[in-house]
Amino acid sequence: MDNLKGNMLIAQGGGPTAVINQSLAGAVLKAKEYENIENIYGSLNGVNGIINERLVDLSRETSNNLEMIAETPSSALLSTRDKPGKEYCRKIFEVLKAHNIRFFFYIGGNDSSDTLRIVEEFACGENYDIRAVHIPKTVDNDLVLNDHTPGYPSAARFVAEAFSGLDLDNRSLPGVYIAVVMGRHAGFLTAASSMASKCSQDGPHLIYLPERAFSTGNFIRDVKKVYNEYGRCVVAVSEGIQDEKGTPIAAKLADEVEKDAHGNIQLSGCGSLGDTLKGFIKNNTDIGRVRADTFGYLQRSFGVCTSEVDKSEAREVGEMAVYYAVGENKTGSVTINRVGDYAVEYNLVKLDRIAAKTKVMSDEFINNDGNYVTGKFKDYIRPLLGSSFKGSGARLRAYEVEPALRKKDE
Amino acid sequence: MDNLKGNMLIAQGGGPTAVINQSLAGAVLKAKEYENIENIYGSLNGVNGIINERLVDLSRETSNNLEMIAETPSSALLSTRDKPGKEYCRKIFEVLKAHNIRFFFYIGGNDSSDTLRIVEEFACGENYDIRAVHIPKTVDNDLVLNDHTPGYPSAARFVAEAFSGLDLDNRSLPGVYIAVVMGRHAGFLTAASSMASKCSQDGPHLIYLPERAFSTGNFIRDVKKVYNEYGRCVVAVSEGIQDEKGTPIAAKLADEVEKDAHGNIQLSGCGSLGDTLKGFIKNNTDIGRVRADTFGYLQRSFGVCTSEVDKSEAREVGEMAVYYAVGENKTGSVTINRVGDYAVEYNLVKLDRIAAKTKVMSDEFINNDGNYVTGKFKDYIRPLLGSSFKGSGARLRAYEVEPALRKKDE
Repeated sequence: MDNLKGNMLIAQGGGPTAVINQSLAGAVLKAKEYENIENIYGSLNGVNGIINERLVDLSRETSNNLEMIAETPSSALLSTRDKPGKEYCRKIFEVLKAHNIRFFFYIGGNDSSDTLRIVEEFACGENYDIRAVHIPKTVDNDLVLNDHTPGYPSAARFVAEAFSGLDLDNRSLPGVYIAVVMGRHAGFLTAASSMASKCSQDGPHLIYLPERAFSTGNFIRDVKKVYNEYGRCVVAVSEGIQDEKGTPIAAKLADEVEKDAHGNIQLSGCGSLGDTLKGFIKNNTDIGRVRADTFGYLQRSFGVCTSEVDKSEAREVGEMAVYYAVGENKTGSVTINRVGDYAVEYNLVKLDRIAAKTKVMSDEFINNDGNYVTGKFKDYIRPLLGSSFKGSGARLRAYEVEPALRKKDE
Repeated sequence: MDNLKGNMLIAQGGGPTAVINQSLAGAVLKAKEYENIENIYGSLNGVNGIINERLVDLSRETSNNLEMIAETPSSALLSTRDKPGKEYCRKIFEVLKAHNIRFFFYIGGNDSSDTLRIVEEFACGENYDIRAVHIPKTVDNDLVLNDHTPGYPSAARFVAEAFSGLDLDNRSLPGVYIAVVMGRHAGFLTAASSMASKCSQDGPHLIYLPERAFSTGNFIRDVKKVYNEYGRCVVAVSEGIQDEKGTPIAAKLADEVEKDAHGNIQLSGCGSLGDTLKGFIKNNTDIGRVRADTFGYLQRSFGVCTSEVDKSEAREVGEMAVYYAVGENKTGSVTINRVGDYAVEYNLVKLDRIAAKTKVMSDEFINNDGNYVTGKFKDYIRPLLGSSFKGSGARLRAYEVEPALRKKDE
């Protein structure tokens, strides 16, 4: 038991992030330190590549290439949306056994944790010794027991940088601007838009989150109010906003609602929610210029403005996973916990404590009107964006020139 | 005549860019070198601020703030979509005269050049001595007599960086991915997506430009072909794509076509074109995963990955404009011309040579099938993106592991 020895397998599942390969590189390079680990394998397209035996030998990758891959967004081992049931997990286990995999790592969201849990049960049932560690990743930031999840800070930074520029754009050509941000149940990514605001009149002026019921009437009233005050209005909306009954607004629009293997409605990859919100304003106000964008897949794939905090944490959860599995001979899910302002420590929790649960924004992060975030949320997110976060830039002081004609005429 | 002396006015018009304030800072700081220039004024919201006498005193801005503003995207003096006719231009001239403006600079596209031309005619008619210089800017890259236009390289770089990440995302979760890129008549910005492709299988695999008639049948056929070959397909589409009669595809979709003051159909700020193209593929193939994003206003406002070449050229056209007006006592439009590989020189051309004309991509930049760019286009754009352009990143070498179960079973 103490000297569990054999091969290692690592895979990446679900939506990629800009730093998910840091975790891959961290785990693979750390694994090379342990004699217990013989071959280091990767599976292509997550669990799908396991059941189809599409494995690659990561031991043979150069350290240099692994370091370059760490800096490359999106899943280098490719991904999958497969959500394994029992029979699927049994197949996974058969392949693991056939390849003498004793250390199994899955980089993914809470579904990945669940997969590991079921596979481990099969292993237990056959007295096959295996350590399975879940390496957290999600741009939605919705894993329980984690202060935050690798992938989120970089996606959040993209959103904050994007809104910084978009708010200036809207300032120069005023009107209503709506941008739809990823986030099915948790509004963390949409809330990150608040970091674009430096001065009092900066946008986003309104932020709508899935944690609060979305009312079309309130939305129109809020936009009108801001527009009347500032002559413009910038709005951040989560793709997952729901009505008071919990029905996603996007689901009510789609002619033909598309669902993924997890039974989730397809939210990203179309512009209809943004266009509908735009229509609400166009049809219910006399505001002339109304524009809506949907950030789409840019949020999780844009590799240019990753957070250095996120990069180093994503690296470390990969390393820690291998340490827990081999160094401590344990199975579980690596968690990130904030200590002080700002530092983190890593822990390992049981797989079933992460699986199939979703963290949403706490009440203290959302204002009373349910249309913006609180200072507490800004305190929470600020260190995650990294010290090189650029944000909103400079403004002219704009010293007024005395009019020459207007005075005479008036 | 040689000692024309008085105040200077500068304004910014049309769609902002990520580097438009470099031109502003360049012109204002250069103007401080000349004794002929007394006060340096800026107009808020372009020509609209002139006729309403909303002027600010830029002489009083600190150099430090001007330098910070240079690094800030979007028009610091705010912008306008007003396209002045004769009467509007007469009003502009009245305000210029009232404030003893002798040097007038407008940072904008070809419309701005036309405005300067008309204003100068009024000045001539009244024997009022003025120098008017147009400072070029446009993300569309559609000004004639220019090798390229400030603002384009940074927007192009955003598009290229975006497609680099998005292609990796599509590689990890395969399907058809379509992104709609800005560009009404000229496909330069959409064509920049080609720079995301490093390896032979990299996307974008198809690029559709306004310069070639868009046929739905060919589009579906092209996508199917790529998908059959690679199991996935990434497509870049210009928002301005037109059918063989020259009707924009977007115009055919819109229930209620919105037009701006220039009579142009509203293309950006909605997701309908992307959603329609997605529908063409969903309804005419059996491909399961089809996603469409519209880049929207991010392309011109994202301040994080500007091209350093673009920044320095935007700065220089601002400086050169002041030099031509004051140092050489001339009126006209500053142009950028490529000399060698890669350097540029600046020239001044008559205002009416730029006004109301549109440059589109030359035939040698587009492939025979009209669905991709040529190597010549890549040679053209490569130096514009700047040496720090990051692009597509690293891949695993992915050494195959011998299957254990599959071999036995098969």
